[in-house]
Amino acid sequence: MRNVILLLFLEKDSKKVYFNNPMWPGEVHSLKVEKILYKGKSEFQEILVFESSTYGKVLVLDGIIQLSEKDECAYQEMIAHLPLCSIPSPKTVLVVGGGDGGVLREVSRHPSVEHIDICEIDKMVVDVSKKFFPQLAVGFQDPRVHLHIGDATEFLRHAPKGKYDAVIVDSSDPVGPAQELVEKPFFETIARALRPGGVLCNMAESMWLHTHLIQDMISVCRETFKGSVNYAWASVPTYPSGVIGFLLCSTEGPPVDFKNPVNSIEKLEGALKHKRELRFYNSEMHSAAFALPPFLRREVSALCHSSTSTLPR
Amino acid sequence: MRNVILLLFLEKDSKKVYFNNPMWPGEVHSLKVEKILYKGKSEFQEILVFESSTYGKVLVLDGIIQLSEKDECAYQEMIAHLPLCSIPSPKTVLVVGGGDGGVLREVSRHPSVEHIDICEIDKMVVDVSKKFFPQLAVGFQDPRVHLHIGDATEFLRHAPKGKYDAVIVDSSDPVGPAQELVEKPFFETIARALRPGGVLCNMAESMWLHTHLIQDMISVCRETFKGSVNYAWASVPTYPSGVIGFLLCSTEGPPVDFKNPVNSIEKLEGALKHKRELRFYNSEMHSAAFALPPFLRREVSALCHSSTSTLPR
Repeated sequence: MRNVILLLFLEKDSKKVYFNNPMWPGEVHSLKVEKILYKGKSEFQEILVFESSTYGKVLVLDGIIQLSEKDECAYQEMIAHLPLCSIPSPKTVLVVGGGDGGVLREVSRHPSVEHIDICEIDKMVVDVSKKFFPQLAVGFQDPRVHLHIGDATEFLRHAPKGKYDAVIVDSSDPVGPAQELVEKPFFETIARALRPGGVLCNMAESMWLHTHLIQDMISVCRETFKGSVNYAWASVPTYPSGVIGFLLCSTEGPPVDFKNPVNSIEKLEGALKHKRELRFYNSEMHSAAFALPPFLRREVSALCHSSTSTLPR
Repeated sequence: MRNVILLLFLEKDSKKVYFNNPMWPGEVHSLKVEKILYKGKSEFQEILVFESSTYGKVLVLDGIIQLSEKDECAYQEMIAHLPLCSIPSPKTVLVVGGGDGGVLREVSRHPSVEHIDICEIDKMVVDVSKKFFPQLAVGFQDPRVHLHIGDATEFLRHAPKGKYDAVIVDSSDPVGPAQELVEKPFFETIARALRPGGVLCNMAESMWLHTHLIQDMISVCRETFKGSVNYAWASVPTYPSGVIGFLLCSTEGPPVDFKNPVNSIEKLEGALKHKRELRFYNSEMHSAAFALPPFLRREVSALCHSSTSTLPR
């Protein structure tokens, strides 16, 4: 890879072209493009789909890789099953974002679930996924799924208090439109929409790159969620630094022990039968995801304390 | 990152320049270079040291990133403490490769260790590390450390049978000179040099990219090591796909339960005092490292079976 490094170093415009993302300055992960399959511009963002040489099809929004067929299993399975396996028989679930349908595919594995709302702001993402990512968009085919195209904060403001057992926030990075999705008012509307002892799983960036952003999210959630606040992470090669984190919170009510799932997926009737195999998630990976390296524990320890929290007191 | 992807796509020589590493075709991870600090060519490889803009100083061998100051803690701490915390009071340790000294720095935390041999083939790596990576090369300052410059297979052939409690193989990827380090004769010389119930920790590539290579290493080790054979992994952002694996094996003798360390680092007298803090490893991360995603379990399940193995029967 030395060639690349030197090339970037010597190129005058390398800063501008290569290393310009404020979320991960100074590095870039490139996938070889075999074929551009789609390029479009929605009301909200630029959408690109390409066939990569080794990661399958790839979805790119505003220049940022959102998912690849090779490793989407890690993100989708973890963000869905970390919360849903942590509470007994979840019935009503809200997915915020997740227009590709992958999270729906995983939520649908849970036989106890009766109603799934999804609020995605960009209809074009749904349409593009249905065309190019049938293995993810299959999630929309479940009759329990109700698609709402619109702004999530708006949707949550009008949601009945205590309606949901679980809310899963599968948003893009908090730059531009998704900025408000890491702010207190947003988390407050989620807490309001959750039943007592209900759970939130929120995409929470990289422990290697975004410690301060994670601190901010945790401290906001500590104020908002009176149950427990926990941080977990998973390996996702196509995300910057190769990991993605999840913030898991519960509202006041029946305590939730996120690290020891009460609703083990291996025991769920029909969670795996006649469906594609789980590729990344199992009960062992669930518990392991809450193990945090000392460098992260030290950063967040000041903020987090809870009877059932896996974060240091 | 879309710009980069398209740029590579449009460049005629992109294949040649960017995506040419047989270990991870079709992708490249680039770090922005602030300043080239050193470029040299040893008898064995090209050595490059540069100051990156966000990962600190970086060591590159034959164009492949070996370590960065930002994330070396994950690799060095895991490859050293996974084996040494899995056996009671290790005394004699051999490090193969590891010329930067980082593994020695971590092995030295163990007060029970009396003798540390390190066999590194390339003296220039040691010299470069002492000059540019003092935080790693500090490992050479421990009086228990004995540096041997030479070929590891040769060194092991002359090692007394059963001399070592633990052997740690911190090698580069098995292309070119390091090829023989994944072959049966090499593992046999290691098994011979280990005491009964002694342990090997061998760098074992990426579960996302090298499943077949991992299968091969596991199957060779199953034949060679009559105790247990286990696979663990850790997050290392600057390695391809953001993870690195470790093959943990024990020889016939007192059984070793790698997943439940008997020699917890938190209880080790002086393991942390007057030393830099552990950044990535703790007992919780140790056990969590053995949790494997289903896609990997399915691949390796045919090969692995052992009373104390964490791999599926």
